[in-house]
Amino acid sequence: MLDRLEILKELSVENRTKIVLLVMDGLGGLPGTGGQTELEAAFTPNLDALASRSELGLLEMVDTGVTPGSGPGHLGLFGYDPLRFQIGRGILEALGTGAHVQAGELCARGNLCTWGEKDLVLDRRAGRINTGSSAGIIGKLAERIKAIDGFGVRFYPGVEHRFAVVFSGEGLSDKVTDADPQVEGRPMIWSEPLDPSAERTSRLVNDLIRKVREVLSDEPKANGCLLRGISGAPDIPLMPDLYRFRPAAIATYPMYKGLARIVGMEVLPVGKTVEGLFQALGTNWAAFDFFYVHVKYADSRGEDGDFDAKREVIEKVDSLVPEVLELEPDVLVVTGDHSTPSVMASHSWHPSPFLLASPFVRSDGSPSFGERSCARGSLGIMPAYKLMGLMLAHARRLSKYGA
Amino acid sequence: MLDRLEILKELSVENRTKIVLLVMDGLGGLPGTGGQTELEAAFTPNLDALASRSELGLLEMVDTGVTPGSGPGHLGLFGYDPLRFQIGRGILEALGTGAHVQAGELCARGNLCTWGEKDLVLDRRAGRINTGSSAGIIGKLAERIKAIDGFGVRFYPGVEHRFAVVFSGEGLSDKVTDADPQVEGRPMIWSEPLDPSAERTSRLVNDLIRKVREVLSDEPKANGCLLRGISGAPDIPLMPDLYRFRPAAIATYPMYKGLARIVGMEVLPVGKTVEGLFQALGTNWAAFDFFYVHVKYADSRGEDGDFDAKREVIEKVDSLVPEVLELEPDVLVVTGDHSTPSVMASHSWHPSPFLLASPFVRSDGSPSFGERSCARGSLGIMPAYKLMGLMLAHARRLSKYGA
Repeated sequence: MLDRLEILKELSVENRTKIVLLVMDGLGGLPGTGGQTELEAAFTPNLDALASRSELGLLEMVDTGVTPGSGPGHLGLFGYDPLRFQIGRGILEALGTGAHVQAGELCARGNLCTWGEKDLVLDRRAGRINTGSSAGIIGKLAERIKAIDGFGVRFYPGVEHRFAVVFSGEGLSDKVTDADPQVEGRPMIWSEPLDPSAERTSRLVNDLIRKVREVLSDEPKANGCLLRGISGAPDIPLMPDLYRFRPAAIATYPMYKGLARIVGMEVLPVGKTVEGLFQALGTNWAAFDFFYVHVKYADSRGEDGDFDAKREVIEKVDSLVPEVLELEPDVLVVTGDHSTPSVMASHSWHPSPFLLASPFVRSDGSPSFGERSCARGSLGIMPAYKLMGLMLAHARRLSKYGA
Repeated sequence: MLDRLEILKELSVENRTKIVLLVMDGLGGLPGTGGQTELEAAFTPNLDALASRSELGLLEMVDTGVTPGSGPGHLGLFGYDPLRFQIGRGILEALGTGAHVQAGELCARGNLCTWGEKDLVLDRRAGRINTGSSAGIIGKLAERIKAIDGFGVRFYPGVEHRFAVVFSGEGLSDKVTDADPQVEGRPMIWSEPLDPSAERTSRLVNDLIRKVREVLSDEPKANGCLLRGISGAPDIPLMPDLYRFRPAAIATYPMYKGLARIVGMEVLPVGKTVEGLFQALGTNWAAFDFFYVHVKYADSRGEDGDFDAKREVIEKVDSLVPEVLELEPDVLVVTGDHSTPSVMASHSWHPSPFLLASPFVRSDGSPSFGERSCARGSLGIMPAYKLMGLMLAHARRLSKYGA
């Protein structure tokens, strides 16, 4: 039995077509007091016009009724079945600090902490040290510790006491326990191997912690660290190898950039504004075939429970859609990575509305882009991980299956 | 986990109902300049009336975005998941010459060629010998060579230098290389086993080629042959065993007849006209339970890129639909094996519109039969291989699952 990724890999061909996947994070919603969802209530003349000449549908990101985190939601959009490819919390948090992680590397979430006599851990968060001070300390570590036991070590500062470490080198294993006493005022519990093959890794983790204590011995509070959630980058086939295109990510938040890097996209430099995302698209148009454009703020305002603010983010994106259309992409998809209804102020399981525009659509002629019009769309409810193959097909990038 | 074919086999019961599966090859299309597809633009009063009392939907032949060849498209319609059951190009080309191939048999594509001194192959296509001369030579081979090394051998003439050979007997293996020098003016490269179990087969292939040289030694140009693409009939369960009915195929093109034979259908004699197909249906009505009727020309005209000619084929079929209805089939499905939009002049990934009429439908009341009306149909988008079970159900040929 052929697996979908094997099929896509076998059938993919190169050509000069361009695909844009525009993701408004948490786009899908639920009706507010007016009876319409955020997307339905938004004034979106450009998306509505696009919808009328598109095929519409709903994307089920993980499985019916399952609320996705941002990791699984995005993996689905990139063509990976999120029930098959899983990304651990450790790695996602590390990516969120801006860490670059590649296959074969290992990363860990770190806490700066306060050590007492011998192995005693007095404060697991170094008195909730502020982000600025913490960044300085992590900078010092990065300068002084570039390798341990022959493995490469990279540090990435995070919020307050948090940071991330990435280990590189041959033979790393994630089958090790955390180096963390869990409870304060207790002696350190060092990392241990869960498998004989992981002995070198647990020693590496513990040796790094000892080295950090040396380097930070003159710090009053943050004089040590703990390392947890030691996990490898997922063994995931890369988009350029699977789909034979040059993919680029245009995103402002570190976690989404990190995810894009993990699946083999080139992450383009971009500012913090929504306008900046669309400018970056135009600037880099010639150099890539597939563009993942990520707008975070629809999700953020949904999480805030702010219906109108989420609606306004959607309206803002709508006003920039003509900039995408001017580039004349061969295939344009607009969707979300999951729903974030502002009435729930959280991610939800509701499928994500999407439209697909290309010269080869049987357009639905829908008057608007919204959850209910998408529910009546000709593409029906579709597992999100099938979207990538559909985009490739519309971009004429898949050859025929069988004779 | 029970597989769908296992379930159908377990639940299938015999009765006297009749099912007609009317396949217009490449039926699905895309909007032309008028905004309608070929099927939507066609004047089809009979199909429209049928649609209004049917359930409608779209069939996804292989997988989302995947463009099917004719082999996978048809396997899906016959109830086999085309990602699980694969039919090689070699066997399909052999079937296209009219070869009959059964499980356990091996077939090869042949070229008549011109041999020089010793093992030298001077012309791999025997000077593009014309089809008439070639048929005469293959006839001579068929008469003189009926067995080699204890295996049965059957010859089937094709177009120009092409022909097919089918080997029968115990212990054949497809794990052998081609017997073909690839380049002209070079010595023959003989077939070799890729596996110890295939030694007898590669010897058989080479012995047949030597025997052909003997028989054709007095031919001026076509004095030998090459054999390529040696492949077995797929190991596929037969329709009569799975579904407990007597299936018949009514088709004019050899490849579709061959495919039907591979899955256990009886192939009925029929002329070349569309009218002839429908006449054959009436003539053989009493003797079978399931009728697969295949109209090739919708695909052919679509491949030509001729919107109007494809529309006219559909209109022609529509005019003959009353002949099917007069027979009062218990279940009638009208669909395609894939889409062939004339604007693309090729097969495409777009799902295939279908209607299902039976006394047990929740009819959609659709005013017409077309891609967009089917997209709004109550059966939604459905994997094609699930259609067979649905037809069996409507024919009251499936018993209850579980108590």
